[in-house]
Amino acid sequence: MTTKKRVESITDMDVDFSKWYTDVVLKAQLAAYSGVRGCMYIHPYGTALWENIRTELDIRFRATGHENVMLPMFIPESLLQKEADHVEGFAPEVAWVTHGGNEKLTERLCVRPTSEALFCDYYKGVIHSYRDLPKLYNQWCSVVRWEKTTRPFLRTAEFYWQEGHTMHETAEDAMEETERMLNVYAEFCEKVLAIPVIKGRKTEKEKFAGAVATYTIEALMHDGKALQAGTSHYFGDGFARAFDITFTGRDGTIKTPHQTSWGMSTRIIGGIIMTHGDNSGLVLPPIVAPIQVVIIPIAQNKPDVMETTEKIRERLAKICRVILDNDDANSPGWKFSEYEMKGVPLRVECGPRDIEKGTCVVVRRDNGEKITVNMDCLEEQIPALLQAVHEGLFLKALKRREETTGSAASMSEMVSLAADIKGGLLKAMWCGDEACEIKLKEEAGVTSRCIPFEQMPISDVCVCCGKPAEQMLYWGKAY
Amino acid sequence: MTTKKRVESITDMDVDFSKWYTDVVLKAQLAAYSGVRGCMYIHPYGTALWENIRTELDIRFRATGHENVMLPMFIPESLLQKEADHVEGFAPEVAWVTHGGNEKLTERLCVRPTSEALFCDYYKGVIHSYRDLPKLYNQWCSVVRWEKTTRPFLRTAEFYWQEGHTMHETAEDAMEETERMLNVYAEFCEKVLAIPVIKGRKTEKEKFAGAVATYTIEALMHDGKALQAGTSHYFGDGFARAFDITFTGRDGTIKTPHQTSWGMSTRIIGGIIMTHGDNSGLVLPPIVAPIQVVIIPIAQNKPDVMETTEKIRERLAKICRVILDNDDANSPGWKFSEYEMKGVPLRVECGPRDIEKGTCVVVRRDNGEKITVNMDCLEEQIPALLQAVHEGLFLKALKRREETTGSAASMSEMVSLAADIKGGLLKAMWCGDEACEIKLKEEAGVTSRCIPFEQMPISDVCVCCGKPAEQMLYWGKAY
Repeated sequence: MTTKKRVESITDMDVDFSKWYTDVVLKAQLAAYSGVRGCMYIHPYGTALWENIRTELDIRFRATGHENVMLPMFIPESLLQKEADHVEGFAPEVAWVTHGGNEKLTERLCVRPTSEALFCDYYKGVIHSYRDLPKLYNQWCSVVRWEKTTRPFLRTAEFYWQEGHTMHETAEDAMEETERMLNVYAEFCEKVLAIPVIKGRKTEKEKFAGAVATYTIEALMHDGKALQAGTSHYFGDGFARAFDITFTGRDGTIKTPHQTSWGMSTRIIGGIIMTHGDNSGLVLPPIVAPIQVVIIPIAQNKPDVMETTEKIRERLAKICRVILDNDDANSPGWKFSEYEMKGVPLRVECGPRDIEKGTCVVVRRDNGEKITVNMDCLEEQIPALLQAVHEGLFLKALKRREETTGSAASMSEMVSLAADIKGGLLKAMWCGDEACEIKLKEEAGVTSRCIPFEQMPISDVCVCCGKPAEQMLYWGKAY
Repeated sequence: MTTKKRVESITDMDVDFSKWYTDVVLKAQLAAYSGVRGCMYIHPYGTALWENIRTELDIRFRATGHENVMLPMFIPESLLQKEADHVEGFAPEVAWVTHGGNEKLTERLCVRPTSEALFCDYYKGVIHSYRDLPKLYNQWCSVVRWEKTTRPFLRTAEFYWQEGHTMHETAEDAMEETERMLNVYAEFCEKVLAIPVIKGRKTEKEKFAGAVATYTIEALMHDGKALQAGTSHYFGDGFARAFDITFTGRDGTIKTPHQTSWGMSTRIIGGIIMTHGDNSGLVLPPIVAPIQVVIIPIAQNKPDVMETTEKIRERLAKICRVILDNDDANSPGWKFSEYEMKGVPLRVECGPRDIEKGTCVVVRRDNGEKITVNMDCLEEQIPALLQAVHEGLFLKALKRREETTGSAASMSEMVSLAADIKGGLLKAMWCGDEACEIKLKEEAGVTSRCIPFEQMPISDVCVCCGKPAEQMLYWGKAY
């Protein structure tokens, strides 16, 4: 039976980007809205995508010497309050547990919004001597931040992430770690997710609550807005002092260790959607795609088609994540649309004429290109094509970022560029004064994204106040 | 430098089993007490053990067609209340979130103690037709139950688990799933953890809140108490009716699906400790041991020892999880004790005399046996010895269970056996009346563990009331 069922279309991204985004999340079956305020039901497809991201990151964390631990989801109020800046930053957005069963708790517990306070309590028990350092921990968990407005993956009350937490003998060691993990994130985004990122430091205004310095990787989305894709924080010894964590140094004196933390979350799934997606739906980077190749038989009731496609599936299953969709309730055309919506990187079509010729047709999701492949060469061609899709995605995203990144030498230029171009990043000099940062937000509607490690001076004066400026910043609208 | 540092000893398990247990948890570095009431800090070693358990279970869940999903950690009070028995069972032991930031919530949220209510809400959105069934889901997460008294791994306020949740077209399909997953758990316990288990059904009194039937696997601990190692529940269509979940059947009429859930938790780590542990510490089943083999150089400052042991490590790293401990701050004797405490299945010793002979000494953790192995044969011998340790552990545990399982034909025999033998399971006939179950608890201090699938009738009358009885039950003291 072949019906004419059609995949429902999604909103055009140029008409309503926000609606397009939500359509993709729902129709690609990544996640659904839940009956719990601001929380998602993440479907098997979205969960598999996150699990693949997790696997790839975990390999990198282990290769850099980190170990996973599991700490509680609750933080007693008194523990959260130990570091003043930290509690000030997070208290307004935490969920509070006040009752256990029918009894009121003597002390409120917050559901962790992040776990610095818990790790500090943990460190106290495991750090005694310089021989115990560094401690290089990571935790995979979910955290809760009571956000007013939420959007699937981008901003949800509960979200999933990994949080790295480390302690070091010296400030230099900790700063090195902070940069090392930012580089791990950048390499992961570019080499695994095909998302080009800009590495830099956050301004004082934008840094993490309680940190001395916050490093960030910023990615440009399809609508011209920036997404903070991962952050790495250097804390100095502030938390350690507040939590009274000490160790006996090499010289026998009592010292205070230096700390970092770094995190990447399910928000990066929003980043994948908005970097690579198009008007046919999701486009997934091959390395983390739950389905890398879908095989669709053409005229499957004809001789040999079922057998041949099943044999292809068996062969490809040894080298990639592949499925064969031979459900006869749906037409090949419906299936094409369905797997385009789900962002499957490669589609293999195979029908009677292909079998006759000993070939099949491979279609790339990233650019629609159709490649005729000799059936005997699939084991060489499929991995090469997956790699080509990855590179195609990365270069397309990089080109877009370069084309939409502007440069402003004056405040009026900043205002007109921010209003004129369809988003994009803006490069401009900054004197370092927070007042200018605030004014730029008020007048041009942009926030500082980062002070990039790669500095390319535009002028020598601040775009806002005209005073001497040595730093070039990226500015933009952000998620 | 070789110091005479000694591994601290632990409490003798025959003197104080409970203290022995806690000593092992802490000194094998599985977990530490946290500053959060009833919650643990799980160290890297304990986390790695749980991750290996997770990997092995996940393989089995996927092989039986299940997909992972991620649902919120919060359940709105109104959702929890939809199924009467369920809320009655869990409400007294849940943690309640009442405030988000500084605002009081209009509806309280409980931190999930289990997720039947959420899955039912999720099913409503994804089940429409018989073609959508079965839905075979699993979730890895932590849950919270506000327990009065807690013990690491065995009973903690927050614990980690997997919860399988499935929906089926017919009652038969759901019952089949319930049994299938109990069998998966039993196979996992015996083949992976080397823990022999008894499969059976819980009595009405002991079943899960809201279930029609609860199946269980029960394992016998070192102190003679039973541990419920995993459960699988059949719900019929009770939840589905309460949550108004329906689908269009093959005949076009509206039908109600049938449901199961099943779970295994970090409690099983307590089961591993209390099944295999001894007075030297933890003993880990090889398949899930974070370190399967530790290599300890003897007289490591002598020629060739460092090089040879490093070469052995490189070779073994290709076939198992191996570490080489060549820290010269600790003596070999100290290391022997340390890795015995941590339960590492095999220790490889290698010193100058071994190198001369071209052999090394392999020591089994389960029975202390020392085996001289030709250095060229390590790749064959190590996997075989790991397998031997697994089998040794399983047989020892099985033998102990058989030796300590008693049989009672009368109430007086039940009372004296329960008081006399150092724990162990007791087989006895039961009429099916809950009054007798309660009386047995009051008079003999035992609870019903399960109605085993393998029935071996002892008599034809109830051990308590003397009325006709067809069912043989296992009774015991339990964790």
